[in-house]
Amino acid sequence: VDASTPDLWLTECPSAHEKHHFSLKSVLFSGRTKFHQVSIVESHAYGKMLIIDGCVQSSESDEHVYHEALVHPAMVAHPRPNSVLIVGGGEGATLREVLRHPSVQSVVMVDIDSELVEKCHKLLPDWHRGAFDDPRVELVFADGADFIARTRRSFDVAIVDVCDASGVAPAASIYRDSFYVSLRRHLGSNATLAVQAMELSTMSCHDHINVLRGLRSTFVNAVSYATFIPSFWSLWGFVVASDAVDVSHFTPNEIDQILVDRGITLQHYDGGTHMNLFSLPKGIRTALGQ
Amino acid sequence: VDASTPDLWLTECPSAHEKHHFSLKSVLFSGRTKFHQVSIVESHAYGKMLIIDGCVQSSESDEHVYHEALVHPAMVAHPRPNSVLIVGGGEGATLREVLRHPSVQSVVMVDIDSELVEKCHKLLPDWHRGAFDDPRVELVFADGADFIARTRRSFDVAIVDVCDASGVAPAASIYRDSFYVSLRRHLGSNATLAVQAMELSTMSCHDHINVLRGLRSTFVNAVSYATFIPSFWSLWGFVVASDAVDVSHFTPNEIDQILVDRGITLQHYDGGTHMNLFSLPKGIRTALGQ
Amino acid sequence: VDASTPDLWLTECPSAHEKHHFSLKSVLFSGRTKFHQVSIVESHAYGKMLIIDGCVQSSESDEHVYHEALVHPAMVAHPRPNSVLIVGGGEGATLREVLRHPSVQSVVMVDIDSELVEKCHKLLPDWHRGAFDDPRVELVFADGADFIARTRRSFDVAIVDVCDASGVAPAASIYRDSFYVSLRRHLGSNATLAVQAMELSTMSCHDHINVLRGLRSTFVNAVSYATFIPSFWSLWGFVVASDAVDVSHFTPNEIDQILVDRGITLQHYDGGTHMNLFSLPKGIRTALGQ
Amino acid sequence: VDASTPDLWLTECPSAHEKHHFSLKSVLFSGRTKFHQVSIVESHAYGKMLIIDGCVQSSESDEHVYHEALVHPAMVAHPRPNSVLIVGGGEGATLREVLRHPSVQSVVMVDIDSELVEKCHKLLPDWHRGAFDDPRVELVFADGADFIARTRRSFDVAIVDVCDASGVAPAASIYRDSFYVSLRRHLGSNATLAVQAMELSTMSCHDHINVLRGLRSTFVNAVSYATFIPSFWSLWGFVVASDAVDVSHFTPNEIDQILVDRGITLQHYDGGTHMNLFSLPKGIRTALGQ
Repeated sequence: VDASTPDLWLTECPSAHEKHHFSLKSVLFSGRTKFHQVSIVESHAYGKMLIIDGCVQSSESDEHVYHEALVHPAMVAHPRPNSVLIVGGGEGATLREVLRHPSVQSVVMVDIDSELVEKCHKLLPDWHRGAFDDPRVELVFADGADFIARTRRSFDVAIVDVCDASGVAPAASIYRDSFYVSLRRHLGSNATLAVQAMELSTMSCHDHINVLRGLRSTFVNAVSYATFIPSFWSLWGFVVASDAVDVSHFTPNEIDQILVDRGITLQHYDGGTHMNLFSLPKGIRTALGQ
Repeated sequence: VDASTPDLWLTECPSAHEKHHFSLKSVLFSGRTKFHQVSIVESHAYGKMLIIDGCVQSSESDEHVYHEALVHPAMVAHPRPNSVLIVGGGEGATLREVLRHPSVQSVVMVDIDSELVEKCHKLLPDWHRGAFDDPRVELVFADGADFIARTRRSFDVAIVDVCDASGVAPAASIYRDSFYVSLRRHLGSNATLAVQAMELSTMSCHDHINVLRGLRSTFVNAVSYATFIPSFWSLWGFVVASDAVDVSHFTPNEIDQILVDRGITLQHYDGGTHMNLFSLPKGIRTALGQ
Repeated sequence: VDASTPDLWLTECPSAHEKHHFSLKSVLFSGRTKFHQVSIVESHAYGKMLIIDGCVQSSESDEHVYHEALVHPAMVAHPRPNSVLIVGGGEGATLREVLRHPSVQSVVMVDIDSELVEKCHKLLPDWHRGAFDDPRVELVFADGADFIARTRRSFDVAIVDVCDASGVAPAASIYRDSFYVSLRRHLGSNATLAVQAMELSTMSCHDHINVLRGLRSTFVNAVSYATFIPSFWSLWGFVVASDAVDVSHFTPNEIDQILVDRGITLQHYDGGTHMNLFSLPKGIRTALGQ
Repeated sequence: VDASTPDLWLTECPSAHEKHHFSLKSVLFSGRTKFHQVSIVESHAYGKMLIIDGCVQSSESDEHVYHEALVHPAMVAHPRPNSVLIVGGGEGATLREVLRHPSVQSVVMVDIDSELVEKCHKLLPDWHRGAFDDPRVELVFADGADFIARTRRSFDVAIVDVCDASGVAPAASIYRDSFYVSLRRHLGSNATLAVQAMELSTMSCHDHINVLRGLRSTFVNAVSYATFIPSFWSLWGFVVASDAVDVSHFTPNEIDQILVDRGITLQHYDGGTHMNLFSLPKGIRTALGQ
């Protein structure tokens, strides 16, 4: 036995026919919340990682790639986002990115799993970086669809950052078309909506297409985009929707100017990245029926 | 024991801290050539796969993504490619893509490993699709650097498609700057050169940067580009170099028009994909020092 | 990537919570027969291996441990075995061991899976070593229970060497009590019966106990025994039954004398091994209710 | 992704060509002491497990098999063990078993790794069951060979329970012949010595043979014995040595009577188990040169 061989591993099974293994330095938490099997580990390759129901949710080394790609296209495309809704986003990093935009005055974050948020708050401080303590933030523990059904508030931007829909509850209610229809009633006329929309490749885009279809049938514009996330070992898809604007039409210079105007400097997202996100390869366009 | 669980697996270790596993239907060949440990397998997820020295080289389901991205930007950027050099490319799929361009009158393919080429010819017919039998093709079994040192021929386009440089021989001689200097002497004034240049992500771009630096110090223009390849589970990098042209400056419309003019329709590459390939995300641009 | 890392692996899952991996040099066959998923591989650690429905059946390096332990206690305990029945035993190694006993004049081997026997005959010659060509052997391709229901022959020794009963068909019919009752009608008064009876440890003996119970309710004597098989990574159980004799009561000297008298020298089985086989540790005796 | 698939695994590599994987409920500790890489985990299959330098040391479900087999043959073979030395044995379970013998008045346990003992004391209470608090026990944190070189005490029974010798320090000093010679000077004329002696199978017995040879050249009698340990997935070897007695010659009845006389009832060890331990299969006897 070679004592230097790592003995603790995280296994992710994207399908019955593929497995990913990450070696671990330590396991900070592993257990069930009311809604999910949750592990928070420290890996050698990607630093700390959050795993929900066997899927890597985000990793210290590249969570900014995911969260910047999810949040900023929709935020930048709104001329002056004031009130923002986040559905899911338990780690607090989506919240952190939203709060970078200086026009934001209130954010409601609705997550169903208070135990998960508490674990992330305590064990993943580099994700939220104090965002939960920002006075502009209201944290609500509820099902996102229930919240939307009951609230009277309206929002300029909504970000949906929930687990993969491939499992059933609790995220299933979020990926139904009826949710988008309800949500749209709470969005202003210039509003934009971004939804994390699962893996997007020529090999695997079924779940993504379901999200895209639902948003296309609800909003005037709904556009897919994608970015590669190293610790996911895959190209990750998002959909941004709006009745007012086609986000994919912004030029790199326009994006860069908006970021400058708002005083925002990011690691992953800028005008050039915007081009990359929205210029999908032909094979994927074909798979999406474009 | 669940009899439906796959029992044969391919393991790839991108580092000591990560492993990928692919389940197999069958193993068509596994053994050593004079230069490499070679396995040719049939996987459930990606169809047939060629593995050299433990690394996935190409897979039935997405080899077109790799080979189109490697070949066409350099070919399209030359106004009328007549003579082409391929270094490596044992599967014959790089050759297949080069031969699509109707102006091509001769292709010299130089591969060091005749046993590997023979195995691919026999076991991977969907890769070469008869390209080895094209009368325009001359197949030379030799070290690429030796061939360049001795030949008097010159080429319009050169494509370097050899294994990762991280292992030592035989590919190491190809990734030295001196090789690029030698090769440049055999290229015409409008010539373009494309080199497969390993993984390219914020997490892993050391080998890529070495290729980019060598080409930048040899050619007027050398530009990185990247595409996601599902069976590599990573973003794959290439460098295209030329004294005459900056390939990244072609617009999507220009690319699409050239492909139409040449009568070429592809699965992965077109004007939109060209934008995607050359608009690298900010994190990668930063890592590349741009 | 370290090119010296093995890339082909066999995975065996004894439960949802444990996995064994064996690195492979090559895969000689992998496919489905009418009855089973069969792989024949060459491993680094154990030489050639036969895997049926995801379970290691026997390995070049230690198949003699399994087959000698299965066959010889029952053969030695019969004063002069003349006619022998083998149910299963597709590799031909059980047959090989039976034929060592010089009094044997006829062996009927009944295996349901002719394709499996053919593959073993061709690819595993070190298992059968020509036993199938012995003129004393009659090979019948049939379900063992059906054969017993129809045959008029009787036997001195019967050896049941079929796959684990945990899967359903085809072996399930063999592990029913009714099979033992039928079989007993075809056994002479001095007859002995040996049955491979799955893993036998304090952690895992449920399947073994089922076999033991069935044989105890059918025969005057039925005794469990076990031996460690390296490529199974476990202690393997057998049951030997007889109306005439308690096989566990033979002393080491008696066993050694019988083997000398018959001119048989083995690698694994002798008087000392007999003691080891039949002196089960207390924990296992407790689990078996003794 | 199937959320019910375990995501945390322990990997043990008995060689470059074999791997064992255990799924984990949780990781109680993982880190380095001054001497070892230590993980304490809770597995689904075997309960809590202690892993040192990548090797499973003992598991909740079967540590009694290991510790009873290590301790009791040597203790039973001494007519009235009064003073006992344990070298290693960090978990405290060897100590627990020694203390069962009512004649014992003092036990010195010498372990080099105080951090390891502390972790086991805190996290593995079912191993020691309070043994460290027994007034007969003296715990010394020192190198076993150094302790023996300096002490003036003598012992009736010595138990050596240190990690595999395959790694270098710190256990290497314990497996040298000079250690046995030194130790013998501190043993009474009726004394017995038991040493954990690594895997013992026809496939793997090199390390065991080294221990056996060293003890044979030092003591009048030195005998190998072995037992199967489920969570080790292998047959585990021990050597018991004595100038006064050949422990393998005790009959089952003698062992059972001694245990009754001492009022000791065990889960794994009794007269029948003693027979099993000391009746090695022929293949192993051959490998040991017997």
